[in-house]
Amino acid sequence: MLINEMTEAECGAFLANVSVGRLGCSLNDQPYVVTITFAFESGYLYVISTFGQKIKWMRANPKVCVEVTETGPNAQWTSVIANGRYQELPEPQFPDERQHARKLLGSRNQWGQNAFAERRLKSDSDLIPPLYFRIQIESMTGLRAVEDAN
Amino acid sequence: MLINEMTEAECGAFLANVSVGRLGCSLNDQPYVVTITFAFESGYLYVISTFGQKIKWMRANPKVCVEVTETGPNAQWTSVIANGRYQELPEPQFPDERQHARKLLGSRNQWGQNAFAERRLKSDSDLIPPLYFRIQIESMTGLRAVEDAN
Repeated sequence: MLINEMTEAECGAFLANVSVGRLGCSLNDQPYVVTITFAFESGYLYVISTFGQKIKWMRANPKVCVEVTETGPNAQWTSVIANGRYQELPEPQFPDERQHARKLLGSRNQWGQNAFAERRLKSDSDLIPPLYFRIQIESMTGLRAVEDAN
Repeated sequence: MLINEMTEAECGAFLANVSVGRLGCSLNDQPYVVTITFAFESGYLYVISTFGQKIKWMRANPKVCVEVTETGPNAQWTSVIANGRYQELPEPQFPDERQHARKLLGSRNQWGQNAFAERRLKSDSDLIPPLYFRIQIESMTGLRAVEDAN
């Protein structure tokens, strides 16, 4: 197995082709990690969510980390870690960005749908307003493990 | 789809049957998330690692979060989030725990092996001492999405 470091451009190309990752946020240095579905474009990860712990924490501390790992055949894998900042996209100020996020995320938001199902279960209501946010990526590193040709 | 909350016992039974998760740690409220291979037993997650950023950060701040998600057929999934504390297992003080971790992890430590391969690549040396640690779990929550029988 050969492990190669990825350039930022390679990390971006990888993120553009995947949609599920782990979002880490932190409050008073207690980390919290959850699975998210995202769409990556032009240095931003777009997410549609419901209100909950991760939103509360990211409003208080916008520093986040997103980790995405994909495994392939023959034990090959790619793993990217991105540091960035939380930016909420409320309706009045960000109509274009929200529309853009909706379009980008399209039908891939299985995790989001699950989150909504869970909230409906808890609140006995079908009216859960979706919350839009994006992560502005500030730095990325990645490793790719490929079969050794020798 | 029905989303059910899991009891702590159910979370533990789930963790005992999986081996790959995401570890979140934090320094100065900057979170950091990486993939780990672990073995769960009696309230502890055992990990064999190499020295690097996550170890530096957990030594400075032992508060961690581990997230494990498994997907099944028909869009079913289980997701557990555990909060806990980092505890390093250096050789002189913890010979029994290290032996136990080795036994528990057995051959499942693919990610660990990858990490060692990477470090060897960087250091041009085959002699990277393994570092043993465990996470003492303090609380766990879990959700399980199953098909609605109706």
